[in-house]
Parts: sequence; structure tokens; C-alpha cells
Amino acid sequence: MHRERFYTLAASCPDRTGIIARVTGFIAEHRGWITESSFHSDDIAGRYFMRIEVKAASLPFMLSEFRDRFAPIARELQMDWKITDSAVKKRVVILVSKQEHCLYDLLARWQAKELDIEIPCVISNHETFRGFVEWHGIPFHHVPVTAENKPQAFAEIRRLYEESRGDTMVLARYMQILPPELCEAYPGQILNIHHSFLPSFVGAKPYHQAYQRGVKLIGATCHYVTRDLDQGPIIEQDVIRIDHSDSPDDMVRYGKDIEKTVLARGLRYHLEDRVLVHGNKTVVFR
Amino acid sequence: MHRERFYTLAASCPDRTGIIARVTGFIAEHRGWITESSFHSDDIAGRYFMRIEVKAASLPFMLSEFRDRFAPIARELQMDWKITDSAVKKRVVILVSKQEHCLYDLLARWQAKELDIEIPCVISNHETFRGFVEWHGIPFHHVPVTAENKPQAFAEIRRLYEESRGDTMVLARYMQILPPELCEAYPGQILNIHHSFLPSFVGAKPYHQAYQRGVKLIGATCHYVTRDLDQGPIIEQDVIRIDHSDSPDDMVRYGKDIEKTVLARGLRYHLEDRVLVHGNKTVVFR
Amino acid sequence: MHRERFYTLAASCPDRTGIIARVTGFIAEHRGWITESSFHSDDIAGRYFMRIEVKAASLPFMLSEFRDRFAPIARELQMDWKITDSAVKKRVVILVSKQEHCLYDLLARWQAKELDIEIPCVISNHETFRGFVEWHGIPFHHVPVTAENKPQAFAEIRRLYEESRGDTMVLARYMQILPPELCEAYPGQILNIHHSFLPSFVGAKPYHQAYQRGVKLIGATCHYVTRDLDQGPIIEQDVIRIDHSDSPDDMVRYGKDIEKTVLARGLRYHLEDRVLVHGNKTVVFR
Amino acid sequence: MHRERFYTLAASCPDRTGIIARVTGFIAEHRGWITESSFHSDDIAGRYFMRIEVKAASLPFMLSEFRDRFAPIARELQMDWKITDSAVKKRVVILVSKQEHCLYDLLARWQAKELDIEIPCVISNHETFRGFVEWHGIPFHHVPVTAENKPQAFAEIRRLYEESRGDTMVLARYMQILPPELCEAYPGQILNIHHSFLPSFVGAKPYHQAYQRGVKLIGATCHYVTRDLDQGPIIEQDVIRIDHSDSPDDMVRYGKDIEKTVLARGLRYHLEDRVLVHGNKTVVFR
Repeated sequence: MHRERFYTLAASCPDRTGIIARVTGFIAEHRGWITESSFHSDDIAGRYFMRIEVKAASLPFMLSEFRDRFAPIARELQMDWKITDSAVKKRVVILVSKQEHCLYDLLARWQAKELDIEIPCVISNHETFRGFVEWHGIPFHHVPVTAENKPQAFAEIRRLYEESRGDTMVLARYMQILPPELCEAYPGQILNIHHSFLPSFVGAKPYHQAYQRGVKLIGATCHYVTRDLDQGPIIEQDVIRIDHSDSPDDMVRYGKDIEKTVLARGLRYHLEDRVLVHGNKTVVFR
Repeated sequence: MHRERFYTLAASCPDRTGIIARVTGFIAEHRGWITESSFHSDDIAGRYFMRIEVKAASLPFMLSEFRDRFAPIARELQMDWKITDSAVKKRVVILVSKQEHCLYDLLARWQAKELDIEIPCVISNHETFRGFVEWHGIPFHHVPVTAENKPQAFAEIRRLYEESRGDTMVLARYMQILPPELCEAYPGQILNIHHSFLPSFVGAKPYHQAYQRGVKLIGATCHYVTRDLDQGPIIEQDVIRIDHSDSPDDMVRYGKDIEKTVLARGLRYHLEDRVLVHGNKTVVFR
Repeated sequence: MHRERFYTLAASCPDRTGIIARVTGFIAEHRGWITESSFHSDDIAGRYFMRIEVKAASLPFMLSEFRDRFAPIARELQMDWKITDSAVKKRVVILVSKQEHCLYDLLARWQAKELDIEIPCVISNHETFRGFVEWHGIPFHHVPVTAENKPQAFAEIRRLYEESRGDTMVLARYMQILPPELCEAYPGQILNIHHSFLPSFVGAKPYHQAYQRGVKLIGATCHYVTRDLDQGPIIEQDVIRIDHSDSPDDMVRYGKDIEKTVLARGLRYHLEDRVLVHGNKTVVFR
Repeated sequence: MHRERFYTLAASCPDRTGIIARVTGFIAEHRGWITESSFHSDDIAGRYFMRIEVKAASLPFMLSEFRDRFAPIARELQMDWKITDSAVKKRVVILVSKQEHCLYDLLARWQAKELDIEIPCVISNHETFRGFVEWHGIPFHHVPVTAENKPQAFAEIRRLYEESRGDTMVLARYMQILPPELCEAYPGQILNIHHSFLPSFVGAKPYHQAYQRGVKLIGATCHYVTRDLDQGPIIEQDVIRIDHSDSPDDMVRYGKDIEKTVLARGLRYHLEDRVLVHGNKTVVFR
């Protein structure tokens, strides 16, 4: 938690020989101290993925110069890449509806600095959590969503997100479907927690679907939001055991525990640049 | 394992007051000693489920008289019911193809008397395991299944099952789809292990489907076979964590571990009359 | 959640024939509608345990008369027993220190009425959470504990608990050891969450002990507090996977997730009278 | 499973800058194609760990030349290191007693080539599994162990292990304590499966100890054998949920499932050179 400042390079490129040597050679040349590194070769897709943490103080230059100097190597390797600085906190805008569990959980982690982020604001279609959010010193915006006002409401959400300079949007059981153009404006920035073990039970009332089918485990899925409902790249999933004695209401209750845990883990991976998206799948360097 | 002989009553009936009192009152009247009992009220279906074990030696009569005396009560309560005797071993016919994991696992449990059953025979569409099965002193029948001979092959399987006086058929990764008339001839007697967490990934090559979708857990499902492929009542399920580094082949390998465990648990529940089917769902009194 | 009012009978007695029949016969005689019932025979200890929920409206009398009428049966069966009324909320006093996770989690559940309890007050040896607790409308008492003032501090805690008419005390990562006389004054009323999978890593800094030993899973244990530190009857436990890359700080962070979940489950079982203590062990009718 | 031949380098050394660059630079220089690589910096111990798989066919030399050329780099970095060849099968000697579950499980995996090893022989202090083992075409040695003959018995086991040119010895629920000199003769070669979640319940009858303590989960631990009983470096652990209704016999039965799974996983990590021992702990690059 009280870690030294570091830079994180997350990248992918076509697979070939010498990739690690090229990248770590560059870092070693400047005496960069690597504290964590992960590599993955997807031999079906022929693509290479990596994530490297380097101590900022070990390098003789700042991030912008790191970027400039690394760019030619990235170009040569045809990389998709980014480098982030642990000293620059991510700005996470949270959207909620009337369910409390994910919101309490995220604010507890934020309050304890377990999630080392800025929360510029919380947006909700209900007033329910205004007091709770504001007590934490976080601005709260009530943006009602009705059948009639959807375009305006989502335009307002987009305006608030832009105004807050958000870089991550979390749908913490928000219960509204974002319009396609909003999803597409922020690819890889919007995380949702779906209350089923996808691809089972897409859409509404998954616990009731699970009850009807008589499954013995229920789950939750944290995924990036795309224009295809509940079809985006999966970041994290988990399940919990139920049995015949559990009603749909019991399942909703159990489900909350797994939802908040899965969302928190998925969000953490995202914030630490551990998630690399490729097509509709993710590489997650935990 | 070396337990005293006992009778097991498994029953369901419309819910009303006084059911437990009526049933346990009858047992108490005859000084029956109840060692285990489970009850479940499904208030959505309005149905009551129960399972009771009574020490055989505590009763003044044998099973047939128990049945005769209990019948009027069962009639009065409109019960679906059966009583079984722990001294009468279930007769389990195992069907396999060319994968070893479930077969080895079941025979290990049988050999150690953890599964206290008779295995009158193993049937396979391949010769692969003849030697292994016969070494255990169990008859092995090779019944090839081709596109042309299906009706005859399944007629032969049915004949062997009847001839063996089987009461349970286990598809231990059998890899052939049973014809509807065979499924319907033995409702609640045929158990299958499906290599996915149903209802996800119905049908062929579920691990490849899972790989394509990028899920973070894979699973297995033990269910009763009905004429609807992979749609029968679920008895038991479990999952195992995978990640981006796992190829479909790795998933097949991980999957084997969860398949054999889930099948063994589901089969055990079935053999101990812990599974009560209602519609397309099960009550499992573990 | 919005369930009908019901009474819960939780009892244990020496095992013999006819116990269920006697108890459920009494209920049936008064047309009591049993919605849930669990029985367990511990044949090593020769003791019988039960828990029965009866719809209040189905009985022709109130709880006090139920008690009076049931008493002779309980006497005859030599029962330890109690009957509780779902309409009477349990009064839970929470003790915390400076860690937020269990407190946020419990208040989220209380706020959503998932935990249907009264929280007459929160007591802490630090001021940290005063604002958070008071914002929820719950009184907050700061009772500092130092090497010098322990007897007075714990006397004050006891006074506050009595004054609040608490019936359950939850040590939600309270980080202070209660004196033996306080533990013994409230047997079966005080729940603790210990941050290890007991009996491993008793005492201080269990995550550091776990790190030293190189275990591959860490856990948490919810137990009743007795005068023997970390030795009381275990109610619930769970674990989470770690690996070589996790520092003690990472383990503390992972541990929080499992601690709050295990405490919430254990507390729920306790509040619903699902936990029956026998010697240093528990029967938990989930 | 039908993977191309590859070499695996497993190494650790004092941490410093440039380690990855040095090692992968050497491989890149010879056009070596890295298919899998894992790195870990233990900043408390100041030590660096790595494991790298390189396609054999991508290199212009054989393994012995690889070793010669790499030696100076290893010396410079003060490495503990080894390189193994996937084409050379490990030789695993299995020791069993009278319990079947781990033996059946290992032979099933060997038979299916999931474990790509040689099993030069199985050694047992009982005749129980002679037929089963020999049916698989594997030599079986009966070495009785009594209070009187221990030194001779273990000398004989050592002789058989040497004669078989074993490089891994697996105690698959062998139930005998190896003498210290045998443990020390083969450090990091002898794997044991202990039937508890260590460090809980060291020594004999762990399930009975677990029953007495009333734990809610039981576990198993795969570890390297050292002269300190049940204290060696832990490779893998897992747990399974139990409850009050489970007798010690039930726990033994459940335990078998977790024992064989944990042993198989631990053995696999060992065989693939994924386990690096440091002091009494392991780094496991799964």
C-alpha cells in the first residue's frame, strides 16, 4: 500500500523471438529496477502480452521521456501499449441505483486507501444514497432516467463523466442499460457487474432464471461494457453454492456477496493495468 | 462405512400441517430409531419433501411389513414415496468410451467399498478398458456404436442393463447420445456427467466454447438424463478456476478433475436416495 | 425478507426414540405450520439437536403460552431449549477498532434490512468511525483502552451493553482481548472474527505467521468468545487462495474480504438461532 | 499434451537490475523462442526467481551446449539453476500403503499420458495393490516395515530407488515416517501428501483432531519431505467444506478427494520444474 512510485508498461504485439529481451534490455540499459513482470504468449492468436512494473526512482528520466524513448521499440514490435504512473491516481466515476452492497464495499475500500483512486462523483437515478455519498465528501448527482428522457439523461451522464475527467466508469449494480453510443465512446473504460455466471442467464432477473433451472451454484461476472448487452470481455467471475432450500430472494442475498467481491477484484485488476483486452477476451495478469 | 443396517424413506407430498408428526409418529409408535432426517418445504411449489433413515433393528418388522403398514399414511398424504434397505446393494451399470478418469475414479471408490454397490457390468463402444475392468473381476461388454447400427446397439445396451438387473446407469463420459426411448424407459435412473457448468455450453466441445467466450471458471454438471439433451434435472455442479494462459487442452485436463468429483458426489447422493426429483429440479438432502 | 412472523424452537437433548414425533406431534396438535425444520443426531455424543420454525399465525396461542405448554415436553426430554419470535429483533452491539471492512459490511447489510436487527450502539477504542456510525443514526461510544485503564474500560463496555439491552456482542476486528470475566458473563453471546483459519495461527499477526510458513491459502474464523483466546466454538470458516507473490500486506488485504464474509455468515446463523453449542463445538443448521 | 520439445530453465539469484534482460538477451541472441516465462521478485528476501520455457528446435545447439554457454551468465548472477529437457521423462517412484485413492488417481493420469512420466516401480509395505500395479505393466516391490526391521527396510527402499534411477519419490499416503537420513539424501525430490491443512493437525489422525476441534473445512497439503515431520516446504494445499453432520469417517472419505487432487497438482508443478524452493518456502510458477 505504501509502495514506492512505479511505472507500469502494459503491452501486446505479434509474437516473435526476442520480445522480452528487447523490452527488458531497454529498461536494463537505463538501470531500471523491475519489481514485477508478467508475460503471456497466446499461440492460438499468435500474440504476445506483457506487463512490467519499474521503480520510478531507478530510472534517470521521467515518464514522458520514457515514453519518447520507448516509442521506437514499440513501433518496431508493432505494439499496442501504454505506460502509467502510480503517482497519478485513476479517476473513477461510480453509477448506482438503489442497491447498497457494491457502493458500500467500494467506498469502504476507498476510505481505507485499499483502492488508491479519486472518486470525482457518484451518479444515480435515485436519491437513495445522496447522504451516504456526500458524508464521504464525494459529490453526488441525481440523474433520473425515464422511458421519455433517456437520450438527455445519458447525455448528462456523459457530460458529468467528461467534466469529472473520469477515466473509468463503474456500473455498481446500476440497473440501466447504457445506450450503444455511450458504450462505444469509452471502450475498455466502463466496467459492469452482472449478477450471473455468464454466459448463463443473460439479461433480466438472472437469479430467477437460475432458480427455474435448478442450478447448484450461482455466480457473478465483472466485464467491460460493449454495445452487446452482457457480451463484453470478461474480467473476473466467481460462484457461490446454493441448494434446493434457497428461494430466489435467498439467491439475491447470497448473490450480493459474490457480486461485490467480483466487482472489487475486477476493478482492482483494471486500475492496476493488469487487464489487456484482445478481441472479446482478456488477459489478466493477477 | 461399517454402518448398521437401516431403511431409508424418501417421499414428497402436497404441503399441509402435521406431515412430520404423522410420519415420525408412525415410526415412533413402533419404537423406530431415526438416525438421520431431512425435511424441505417448497413454498413456491406448495410441496413437501422428506428423507428419513431408521435403524432396521429398532423396528419389530421387516421392510415389506413396513411398506404395508406405511401405505395407508402415504395414501392419506398423497405421497410419492419409496423405502429402501441399506442391505440391498444398488446395481450400477457403467457406460464408458475412451476417457479413463471417471472410470478409474469410480472403480477406486468401489474397490475401497466407499461406494457400496454391485457393478454387474461395464459397457463401452471401445475395447480400451476391457483389461482394466476385467482385472477388477467385472464383466465388460463391447457394444460398438456406428451411424448405421444405432438402434441395434442401444437395444443391446438395454438388453444388457435388463439382464444385469441394473437399477442405475452411469454415463461416465460415454460420448454417445442415448435415444429418447431409452431415456424415457428409465426416468431418474440414468446419470450423466456433462463437462460444463450448465446451462452454459450445452452440446459438443464445451471447453472450446468456454475458451472462445473467455470465461474465468469452468465447470461440470451431473444430471439425470431425459430426452432433452443436457436439459435434465441437475443433481450436482462444481467449477474450477482457469485463466488466460490455459489452452482448450489445459481446460480439458482441469475439467477431468472436476468431472470425476462431481459425478462421484452426484452418484453418491443418488445411491443413498438423497435426490428427490420434482419437475425438472431436484431436492438433494446432502 | 418480508417473511411472515414465525417462532423458532432450537433445542438439544439426550438421543432416544420418538423425539421428533413428540415435538412435532405437539405442534401438529395445535395445527402449527412448520416452514423449516432440521434435526441432527450426534451418535458419538449421544445427543440430539433440532431447530424448527413455525408460522406464528398458524398457532392458536402466543409465544408465552407456547412456552408454557411446551415446557413439560422439554422437561420430559431433558432438553436445553429456547423459543424466539421473529417479530422481536435481536439487539446487536458492535465493537470496532480502526479497521473499516467489517463495520461497513455490517452496516450495509443492516441498512438494506438484510440483517433484520437493532444496533443500539457501536463501541470503539478509537474515534475513527464516529461520523460514519452517527450518520447512520446509531449512537457511537468512544471507550479508550490503555494498559492502565483496562478494568474500567471493560466495565464501561459491560455497562453500555447492559444499558443497551444487547443480546449479541460482535467483535468486528476489535483488536482488544476481552477479560475472562466479561467472556464468561455472556456465554454464546459474543462473536469474534479471527483472521486465520483456526487452529492455525492463534494470537497476534496471523498473516505474518502464514507468510512465514508459506501456506497457499489463508482463512478467517468466526467463533464464540470464551476465556481461552481463539479457542471458542467455531461457527464458520472460509479460505482464499494466495501465492508466493503475495506479501503480508497483500494477505491482509485479501484477508479482509474473507473476514467480512465469514463474520456476516456466522452472525446471520447466530441471529437466526441456527447455532447450537455443545461443549466446544457447534451444530449449525444452515 | 502433444507439445513440441522444449527446455525449461528454472533459476533463482540475488535480486539486482538487468536480470531478465541478461537471461532473455542470451536466449534472443541465439534466436530462442520463449513460449512461457515467469518471474518473481521477493523483495523481503532480496531474491529473484524465474522459469523460462524455450522451444528446443528454435535453438542452434543441444541442451549440453546450452548449459555450457549459459554457465558464465549464471555464475555472474550467482544463480542456483537447472535446465531440463521435455524429451527426458522424469522417473517417479511411488510408495503406497493400503489406501487406494492416490494410487488409482496417479495411474489414471499416467495411463492417459496426462502425467508424461516413467514409473519404474511402485513400492509398498503391503501386498494389497500388487495385482493392480502389475496389470499396468509396472514392477511392484513389497518391502514390509516393522518395528524391528526399519533400518533394513528403508535401506532396501533406497536401493530400489537408486536402482530405478528415480528422480522423484512420491509418498502416496504411504503411512510410514521416513528416517532423517533418507529425507536428507534426496532434498526436493520426495513429495508427501498430508491429510490436513498444515500447519493445523500435524502428525497422526488429523481428521480426528479436526473433528475434535469442530472446524468447518478440512484440507490436504502436498509438501517436500524434510527431516522435520510435516514441516517441509509446502507446494500446494486445498480444503473442502464439512459440517456438524460429518463423522470422522465421513471426513476421511471427503478428505480422500482433496488429497488426491492436491497431490496430483503438486506433483505436476514439481515435474514441470515450476517449484523453486527457498528456505522452507516455495515459489510455484503455475
